[in-house]
Amino acid sequence: MMLVESGDDLIAIDCGLMFPDDEMPGIDHVIPDFAYALAKRGAFRAVVLTHGHEDHIGALPYLLRQTGVPVYGTRLTLAFVADRLREHGLLEQARLTSFKPRDRFEIGPFGIEPIRVTHSIADGIGLAIDTPAGTIVHTGDFRLDPRPIDGETPDYSRFTELGERGVLALCSDSTNVDRPGHTPSESEVGPALAPRFAAAQGRIILATFASHIHRIQQVLDLAARYGRKAALLGMSMEKNVRIASELGYLRVPEGLLEPLEAVAALPASRQLIVSTGSQGEPNSALALMAVGEHKDVQIERGDVVIISARVIPGHERTVGRVINALFRLGAEVLYEDNAFVHVSGHASQEDLKQMLNLTRPRYFIPVHGEYRHLLGHARLAASVGLPPERVFLVEDGQGVVYVKESEEMLAELKAAVSQALAERDPAQPFDREVVGALVKSAVRRFIQQRFQRKPIVLPIVLEVPGAARG
Amino acid sequence: MMLVESGDDLIAIDCGLMFPDDEMPGIDHVIPDFAYALAKRGAFRAVVLTHGHEDHIGALPYLLRQTGVPVYGTRLTLAFVADRLREHGLLEQARLTSFKPRDRFEIGPFGIEPIRVTHSIADGIGLAIDTPAGTIVHTGDFRLDPRPIDGETPDYSRFTELGERGVLALCSDSTNVDRPGHTPSESEVGPALAPRFAAAQGRIILATFASHIHRIQQVLDLAARYGRKAALLGMSMEKNVRIASELGYLRVPEGLLEPLEAVAALPASRQLIVSTGSQGEPNSALALMAVGEHKDVQIERGDVVIISARVIPGHERTVGRVINALFRLGAEVLYEDNAFVHVSGHASQEDLKQMLNLTRPRYFIPVHGEYRHLLGHARLAASVGLPPERVFLVEDGQGVVYVKESEEMLAELKAAVSQALAERDPAQPFDREVVGALVKSAVRRFIQQRFQRKPIVLPIVLEVPGAARG
Repeated sequence: MMLVESGDDLIAIDCGLMFPDDEMPGIDHVIPDFAYALAKRGAFRAVVLTHGHEDHIGALPYLLRQTGVPVYGTRLTLAFVADRLREHGLLEQARLTSFKPRDRFEIGPFGIEPIRVTHSIADGIGLAIDTPAGTIVHTGDFRLDPRPIDGETPDYSRFTELGERGVLALCSDSTNVDRPGHTPSESEVGPALAPRFAAAQGRIILATFASHIHRIQQVLDLAARYGRKAALLGMSMEKNVRIASELGYLRVPEGLLEPLEAVAALPASRQLIVSTGSQGEPNSALALMAVGEHKDVQIERGDVVIISARVIPGHERTVGRVINALFRLGAEVLYEDNAFVHVSGHASQEDLKQMLNLTRPRYFIPVHGEYRHLLGHARLAASVGLPPERVFLVEDGQGVVYVKESEEMLAELKAAVSQALAERDPAQPFDREVVGALVKSAVRRFIQQRFQRKPIVLPIVLEVPGAARG
Repeated sequence: MMLVESGDDLIAIDCGLMFPDDEMPGIDHVIPDFAYALAKRGAFRAVVLTHGHEDHIGALPYLLRQTGVPVYGTRLTLAFVADRLREHGLLEQARLTSFKPRDRFEIGPFGIEPIRVTHSIADGIGLAIDTPAGTIVHTGDFRLDPRPIDGETPDYSRFTELGERGVLALCSDSTNVDRPGHTPSESEVGPALAPRFAAAQGRIILATFASHIHRIQQVLDLAARYGRKAALLGMSMEKNVRIASELGYLRVPEGLLEPLEAVAALPASRQLIVSTGSQGEPNSALALMAVGEHKDVQIERGDVVIISARVIPGHERTVGRVINALFRLGAEVLYEDNAFVHVSGHASQEDLKQMLNLTRPRYFIPVHGEYRHLLGHARLAASVGLPPERVFLVEDGQGVVYVKESEEMLAELKAAVSQALAERDPAQPFDREVVGALVKSAVRRFIQQRFQRKPIVLPIVLEVPGAARG
């Protein structure tokens, strides 16, 4: 959850939950600290969502239990949100408003424009947020897929236009900054899986993320092409497929989907099972199959199991154990290490450079990733010409992006800045960078004392002819 | 620990301990089940060691507490063993005998010949074990390094000779079977690190495995070349460097090593610290530095930290946290994902094929690795022409390689086999493979009933002219 403030107004971008790591035993998930946003209730104007992954929407029920703030997102994203809110009994009272890419709308002092990006979930967007201080571009989680499954290519031209008009700050996804080159297109996965479907004599079991609508689309199309019927395994898989097909984001071939019992009654060579459990989660369908304890599916020699997903760091051994167990039962197991069965949803180095080059921001804030990735992204930005002093490294939990505070406080802040400038050696010639640095440190000091927070300060020094000098 | 039996005699190859995974909380380490070998005390003739890594020697103190069985190994391997036995108060009574590559010796019915291989620890060997049934070649953990740091190249010609003479079974290291190509030479690491030493303005802290003598050699040589003094951090690092240099396996440049306090008093650009903690182990020197809690070393901007090791699966997040923390303190961190700072100690696909092609075994037993790696190695063997029925997939804990049992039991076994052969349809023409399979299944059945173990049976069908037929 990232907060953007201007004057008395505040919006949040996304509202996700984090999954705990092995140092948080007994914790189901971690939600953001809403205290700051909730303390400003009246000023908290909206939550704007970039896409429907859990780490971007999952904490909404916890937030909406405490405030009736309106939520904006694309149709599919809001459909996933609505499903979760219904589970929490919060749907009735929720204020959900859908938008489309390029549909600019205003919330208080903010002009908000969704911009199409591609990601490992359908209907993802980035955002251009016009503030009184300038335009902030937030990429959301993205890759630049030139041939996405739904034809919804990233809006290169809009990013370019924004770059030409002037972008104050870019916040861009750092997840894959260690990967050279471009991330391959999602549309390469289907053709790579096709020969496996053509050759398989036994049942095919494919595990992927339940939210990966375009992966599921390709797999269902392959099943239809190679004469298999498909069953869905896993609650989230069934639910997401239903939601996405109701809204037209997924086109399930006529008569393809059948209940598990019906599919299991067919010859093995006519069966496809699309399942959750790609991270080897204990009690997931795939993990139960691997230990021979799934009530409906017994793995047999000749079965092909395709783990069409990356292993999320921390799950290597769990996934490894599932793979070993499946091999022991005689299945052929295809996974990232031994076959091309997956592409990432995040931009690689060349894509990230392209985003920087299109938007040409004055300031850059790498987001999404561990510190090493944020730092790597900062260096990548330096390699395309962004001066290091215009790059801000902020980790989750460090604070808000501060734009302007209330008028009253602003007066005090102005005084603090004026004082700092007055202390400047008048013998020194005017230097934009030096003045910027002075203002920055004065503002930081002020905010730190007042709010016990370290803000990111973006100084914008305007030269007024004949006035600022001397 | 792998057991080889012949008649009444039994030898063990290696005696290592396993480190527990995240499903064994509170367990320090896992040692092999010695029950079978100890039950045969008198017949248990020797432990023969391939190299000095913990997972090959670490359980020896636990074994030698219960039996005075003699232990054989190379000088360096035995020096590491002696050190551990001394800690356990077992050194006095231990019977340690060193050997050199190609020094063939006999233990009961076994002829044992160490064969030089290269690995991530110095003085490693594979073994040729002559048994009454034929020669078993065990590679140990190995890579085929054409330019090892100590000049001790793998003994290609001996493996070739053994292949020409006839190898009954090959046991070969499967760890890196997923990696295409050849594993690069250890001697590529030093030249790759040299520009880092040349460029670094601050302190260099290099973390690696304490047993990786050749890596440490290269790093100390670089320190000498670029005018740095070196301190060692970590008990095992200090101990192993002392042992290896006393025996001449490591040549520490004159006057290079100094106590930490002396090195820390030098300008940062003249300091090298060689440290343990490459897996981010909590309380290791590196982890303490990363959180600013090391009593002698405070990381500063400009310091270069090189993690010259692979991340052992299961440690990804721990190592990741250490890397992030070091970056936050302003250090430059070089690690496997962002720089060439390490090569593996295990053979890749082309090396493994070469080992199969040199030794041309009748039977093949992939060892060392998870099930998926053993299976991948079995398939690699098939790709160079080894028929699948001659490949045995056995995981640790499944049993012993059975060659022959005691005379008394042999008589019963003979009867069981004769009976199985008598049931053969006499109308069928003699077929070596069919007879082999019959014998194999009869022996397996017999052993399983008698010992509740599933043995690997290597049937050797000799055609005696004019006798076996009909």
